[in-house]
Amino acid sequence: MVAEDEQTQLDVNETRETGRLEAFSDGVFAIAITLLILEIDVPLHSEHLARDLLHEWPSFLAYALSFLVILVMWVNHHAVFRLIGRINRPFMMLNGLLLMVITFINYPTAVLADYLTSSHADTALQFYNGTFLIMAILFNALWRYASRDARFFVADADPDTVAAINRAFRFGPLMYGISFLLAFISVPLGLATNIGLAIYYAIYSL
Amino acid sequence: MVAEDEQTQLDVNETRETGRLEAFSDGVFAIAITLLILEIDVPLHSEHLARDLLHEWPSFLAYALSFLVILVMWVNHHAVFRLIGRINRPFMMLNGLLLMVITFINYPTAVLADYLTSSHADTALQFYNGTFLIMAILFNALWRYASRDARFFVADADPDTVAAINRAFRFGPLMYGISFLLAFISVPLGLATNIGLAIYYAIYSL
Amino acid sequence: MVAEDEQTQLDVNETRETGRLEAFSDGVFAIAITLLILEIDVPLHSEHLARDLLHEWPSFLAYALSFLVILVMWVNHHAVFRLIGRINRPFMMLNGLLLMVITFINYPTAVLADYLTSSHADTALQFYNGTFLIMAILFNALWRYASRDARFFVADADPDTVAAINRAFRFGPLMYGISFLLAFISVPLGLATNIGLAIYYAIYSL
Amino acid sequence: MVAEDEQTQLDVNETRETGRLEAFSDGVFAIAITLLILEIDVPLHSEHLARDLLHEWPSFLAYALSFLVILVMWVNHHAVFRLIGRINRPFMMLNGLLLMVITFINYPTAVLADYLTSSHADTALQFYNGTFLIMAILFNALWRYASRDARFFVADADPDTVAAINRAFRFGPLMYGISFLLAFISVPLGLATNIGLAIYYAIYSL
Repeated sequence: MVAEDEQTQLDVNETRETGRLEAFSDGVFAIAITLLILEIDVPLHSEHLARDLLHEWPSFLAYALSFLVILVMWVNHHAVFRLIGRINRPFMMLNGLLLMVITFINYPTAVLADYLTSSHADTALQFYNGTFLIMAILFNALWRYASRDARFFVADADPDTVAAINRAFRFGPLMYGISFLLAFISVPLGLATNIGLAIYYAIYSL
Repeated sequence: MVAEDEQTQLDVNETRETGRLEAFSDGVFAIAITLLILEIDVPLHSEHLARDLLHEWPSFLAYALSFLVILVMWVNHHAVFRLIGRINRPFMMLNGLLLMVITFINYPTAVLADYLTSSHADTALQFYNGTFLIMAILFNALWRYASRDARFFVADADPDTVAAINRAFRFGPLMYGISFLLAFISVPLGLATNIGLAIYYAIYSL
Repeated sequence: MVAEDEQTQLDVNETRETGRLEAFSDGVFAIAITLLILEIDVPLHSEHLARDLLHEWPSFLAYALSFLVILVMWVNHHAVFRLIGRINRPFMMLNGLLLMVITFINYPTAVLADYLTSSHADTALQFYNGTFLIMAILFNALWRYASRDARFFVADADPDTVAAINRAFRFGPLMYGISFLLAFISVPLGLATNIGLAIYYAIYSL
Repeated sequence: MVAEDEQTQLDVNETRETGRLEAFSDGVFAIAITLLILEIDVPLHSEHLARDLLHEWPSFLAYALSFLVILVMWVNHHAVFRLIGRINRPFMMLNGLLLMVITFINYPTAVLADYLTSSHADTALQFYNGTFLIMAILFNALWRYASRDARFFVADADPDTVAAINRAFRFGPLMYGISFLLAFISVPLGLATNIGLAIYYAIYSL
């Protein structure tokens, strides 16, 4: 359908290819979000099960937070891909790096869950929010790469949508940067910012 | 194809988008249902393997029960999405919360498997059935949100199907509410209700 | 597109629905086959890593065997679904039970890997082959249910394909029944039958 | 659409079937790449969490390396399938063997992560690179089988693309063969080659 352009034949540049990459990405998002639950440990030989389950609250909180963040990232990823009609190799690799970080979130989530009530809560939260900061920066890089001169956009990409994503994406790394810094100052404040951001993005954001 | 309506551009509102959300949800359902098996432990250094495998019956029972519940939920989710032609951001987030609970089922399943033959079986079953109750309530909320004034329905949504789902969904939280309460009164009775409900829903329900 | 027939509206009976069920099943097959690797343990603090990795051969063998079995089952499942144009609720539930057993294979695989070189190898192999026997019986039930009077077939279902599947499926439970029985007589013989069956099916079978 | 040819009916040979096999393969790739994160352990009861997380660097390195390798393999797999219009049973089984190795990568990745800083680093790296060598050979076999006489190609398969894949695929097993041999000579050199290859392939390769 789409005419071959002057790129090399191995460049992946058609709508069908974009759909394929999005489907693969969707699969990684779906798996990453579902694997989070495996990191919550069942209390062993508990004598007070109800109490011990309540004591797992950092695991439940970290689970819910990371689930929301990955869910919002999936929604945003999807919004970006609605505008994209062609891709190339660097775009695929930037997207791959983003997926690597999305998948990686599982690990700092488990670290945060295990250490949130310890004296190392600050380190755990810095690790957790540092991961989100890298994620936000990579997502920005992907967007900037794709939107420069609108070169990868579909013909009917809506300018208002593009402007809205531009605004939202400037905001993201800043917010995650702030919550990363807050993790060095105060764990409760940093965590509260995380919760606030997750809920805000779930409701309002792109 | 579908004309843009007066919603903001970032609202996700076309048939293609609905299909995408359903595919993502299907992925999460498929992964959540498959991960259940990872929670069954292999007996370590067993001297009587056959006997020790039989002693894992609470794990097998919890596995089969949760598998059936998630399977039925997938079928129902699918039946609802057949009627849906457009979605918006709150619908996506309600659906995300539902997926969070579906994924979470893995954990109370593992808790129930580990504690069903202990003196804490009641707590484990309350946790298990409490999760199902929240799941049923969220699914109801999703349905009510989507079906109010039939606003998200496809043009040819069948009124009989809508009525049937309305009847079935009123029944769901009530049944899971009862099995949740029974877990406080009698573990065998509560568990029997779980088994009965799972089989009933597998055979008859929406 | 497809005209509604006289079944109740909640019956799932169109081509689109069949495709959806197949996609969900494909997802479960893909996840089940990929999770197998998680059951192989990394040797802890090994002093002779090469030797200890070689000692994991029962895990590698069980992994390869189960991978092949699930792969062949996926191919067969797919061949059956190529003939199917409509489904109903009992068919969906039979298919769900089959998926439950496919997913369950992970567990007897881990048991076989852990006990193949122990004095309980016979029990482990009986458990392993018993699972395959149940799988083969369920797959037969699914096929018989769908093919009775060709009621769920697409209009252009090829009679030769149907006959070939009929022949192959009569063979399956018999073969798995024999390998199940052999596990009671001789572990090496039973295991050799498993390997032979897996390779035979991979090359020739439906 | 495509006319049935003279192969047996059970041969799978249409475009729809190719798409189905590719979707299944994509699912396995997506799951295999996402499961990698589960192999990184959270430090237990750490007294110096930041230091202990830094000590996990072999896990992070092995994670990133394997993620990149699987990602590039997915891109390549995809490039090959773009040319393929028909498949048969042996092709499906070769593809299945390739997927088995892709899934297996998880295990040598975990072994490398656990033993990279031990005196058994050489064995771990040989195991890791040996797996990649087998993967490269299997992928070559799949390509040769499919491209012989262009028999499985779509009608409009681009000769330049075919030539480019031919060149790239001759290169792959050679490179992985060299990095496998280097693991016997020097772990740092072997590992550096791995990193270089992963980055090279991510940027340039097919």
